[in-house]
This record gives sequence, structure tokens and C-alpha cells, in this order.
Amino acid sequence: MPRVLYELLGADDLRFSPFCWRTRMALAHKGLELDEIVPVAFTEKEKIAFSGQERVPVLADNGQTIFDSWAIACYLEETYPDRPSLFGNATARGEALFINNWVDRVLHAEIFPMVVKDIFDHVLPKDRDYFRETREKRMGETLEATHAKRDARLKNFSKTLDVLRHTLKKETFLCGANPAYADYSVFGAFQWARGVSSLPLLTQGDPIDDWHKHMLDLFDGLGRNLKGV
Amino acid sequence: MPRVLYELLGADDLRFSPFCWRTRMALAHKGLELDEIVPVAFTEKEKIAFSGQERVPVLADNGQTIFDSWAIACYLEETYPDRPSLFGNATARGEALFINNWVDRVLHAEIFPMVVKDIFDHVLPKDRDYFRETREKRMGETLEATHAKRDARLKNFSKTLDVLRHTLKKETFLCGANPAYADYSVFGAFQWARGVSSLPLLTQGDPIDDWHKHMLDLFDGLGRNLKGV
Repeated sequence: MPRVLYELLGADDLRFSPFCWRTRMALAHKGLELDEIVPVAFTEKEKIAFSGQERVPVLADNGQTIFDSWAIACYLEETYPDRPSLFGNATARGEALFINNWVDRVLHAEIFPMVVKDIFDHVLPKDRDYFRETREKRMGETLEATHAKRDARLKNFSKTLDVLRHTLKKETFLCGANPAYADYSVFGAFQWARGVSSLPLLTQGDPIDDWHKHMLDLFDGLGRNLKGV
Repeated sequence: MPRVLYELLGADDLRFSPFCWRTRMALAHKGLELDEIVPVAFTEKEKIAFSGQERVPVLADNGQTIFDSWAIACYLEETYPDRPSLFGNATARGEALFINNWVDRVLHAEIFPMVVKDIFDHVLPKDRDYFRETREKRMGETLEATHAKRDARLKNFSKTLDVLRHTLKKETFLCGANPAYADYSVFGAFQWARGVSSLPLLTQGDPIDDWHKHMLDLFDGLGRNLKGV
């Protein structure tokens, strides 16, 4: 049976979902090829209705349907134990989940308002109304009002990154000498921003920037090949 | 040569340093007994002057002097590789460092202002002026002014813990089925508060509270036996 990934689609064939990037990197880490990638616009929920929920990524593999990027990572680890491990061992899976949750709840929460207007500018025309309505409801203000506060947010962003920065001062990757899933979780957040925005989230000389360049190079430049703006 | 730990001393023989708790738990994890624990008051820097710096914990082991709780953990892991691993493997050490940094920079930063007045009430009389002066300088306001905002801070604290909470919903310990160093880093923060304050940082039914009870039971109740208030 074919292995198929359903991932978010933006305008101009852009793929900027941070969650989908985690799965793309995890599949590459495991050396698992995809037979097909099905792009899904924000408003094309019917394409993934078979999964019983409305969010990408969805992986169809070996007759099974798995959704939620963390669940997909655990599925890949359990189903393909002979491939390079995404977690290292059972100790590290819990720690990777902590980092994954930090990305979801802290890193994404800080990046989102800084790039939400850029995302809007890069969704498919048919998704624009849906995107504006759902995101303005979430933020309690217009996209433009959020966007106006971007520079102030960017100033504080560096402090949020301290946790990451001080780790990457001592370790090449979050997972030590080689990258693994926790690195992909964090990387996904930067791919999200990179796909839609020219906002410089990292500056040269920052250990995070060095790590980020390494991450872009992985798997023959899988991440670097993202068409960005 | 004797194995000696230098750790922070409060009034009434209280030991509440979160960093010293990390080391105590790490030594217990490795099954390493201490020949001596030397208590060090805030203003007794001369007791650890031999280490070339002014902070506890300091571990004297096998003719070596190690300071900084993270450096001590790495030292114990490298020096006693046949004992139970603190990190699991090289992948997990980086992740544990990330969590350790999150504790230092986020968890401690939130707990500190909520308990700083309680700490003041539990330092040795001779340390009170030193403690007040250095901490008020750090906070830019009096201990009492900080203390007055405690309830408001406590309300927001639960949100900070979400990263931890959502991890412990899925995993018994941060390090999976069994505790390891990342658990001790987080535990140290709660021991700090528990040693000096009756403030209820956790509530029953919270997955973090369940984890915390497990942590208190470890190593024959090593953490639970802390004389708290």
C-alpha cells in the first residue's frame, strides 16, 4: 500500500505548516520515502475527512491512518524500530515530548502573531476569508492590528529563545551530536516563519543560527529547499 | 578520598536550594553515598572558596572539585558509567540540558518572586541583610512589594506549567517510565518552594501533582524527608 502524507498547502505551492515539517523531517530521518504528498488547503477539510478529524499532517501508511505530528512520530518509531531512532531511547521520548510541547505552547505562540499577516498573504485565495475569520477570532483583533506590534514582539523574542540558545551553546543539536525529533520540532517552527516571512528571527553569530544552518542542510537540503519568501 | 557535598543552609537546618536538590537526587540515582554534607550559609562563601567560585552545590569527589549542578551531573555520568544513567544516552543529554535550562530560566523565574519573602524568612539571621540587599537589587523593589503580587502571579503560574502538564499526561516521568536527570531538575524547583513556603503551587488531580508525589517517594522518600514549612 502506498505511503501518503497529507500536508498544508499555501499559495504558489508553499508548504509552511510547522507540524507537517516535523513529519517530513521524521520520515527523512527514518529513510522512509513517500509515494505521494497530497496538498490540503485550509478549507479543503474534505480531503482528510477519512481521518476523522480536520488537521494536517495525516499519514496513511501500511493501511493505517495516523494524525497529529507527535502520534505520527511515535508510530514511525514503533513501526520501524530498525531504522534510525527518532528519540534515542525511552528516556529521551519523554524529554522530546516536553520540548515538542514547549514548541507548541511557547515558541509557536510567540512566532504566530509575528507572522500571521504574512501567512494570510500566502494562503490560497479561496482560504483567505476562512483564515482571517478564524485567526482574528483567536487573537481578538484584526490581522493588521497584530501585525502593527510585530517589531515590539521581535525585541522580546530573543529572550524566549534563551532556553534554546544556552542549550545549543553546549550541544551541536538538541539531541546531542546528531539531530533527532526534538530538533525537528523546533526546526518546524522556523520553517513555518521562513516559508511565509522575511522577518529575521535569528541573527548571525547566535548559536541557534548555527544550528539552524545545520538543520537546513540535513537530508540533502530538504528544509533549505522550501520555497520561502 | 571522601565524597563531600557543599550545599545551601537555611535557618532551622533547612536545605532548600533547587540546584543542590538536583545534585542530591542525581547522587541517589547513581547510588553514590556521601561521606559528608557541608552546609553553607549564603554569607559563608569562604567555605567553598577552594572551588574558585561562590555558588553551591560543590562536589568534592575522588580528589576533584566540581561545581555547577549541570557540570556535576555530567561528571557523575562520565565518572560512573556503570551506575544507572542520568541521561539514558547521548541523545537524551542534550534534551535534558534543554529542560534544565527551561527550569533555570522559566520555572525558577516564575517561582522566585512568589517565594522570595518566604526564603527571606528562612535564611539564617546572619544572612538576612545579605539576602535582602542582593535580591531587592535584582528585583528592583522591596521583598514586601514583590510578595504583595504573589496571588496574581500564582494565577498565571498554571499556564507556565502547561508544557510540563501536557507531557506528564502522556508520560509517568519526564524521562519516560523511570525518572532521570530532567525530572530532578524540575523537582528541585518544587523542593525549593516546598522547603520555605506553604504556597500551593500544585493542586490535586493535576498530572504534575501525581508526578510530584512519585518524585517525593523516590529513594526512600529522600525528597519527602525535606523539612518543609
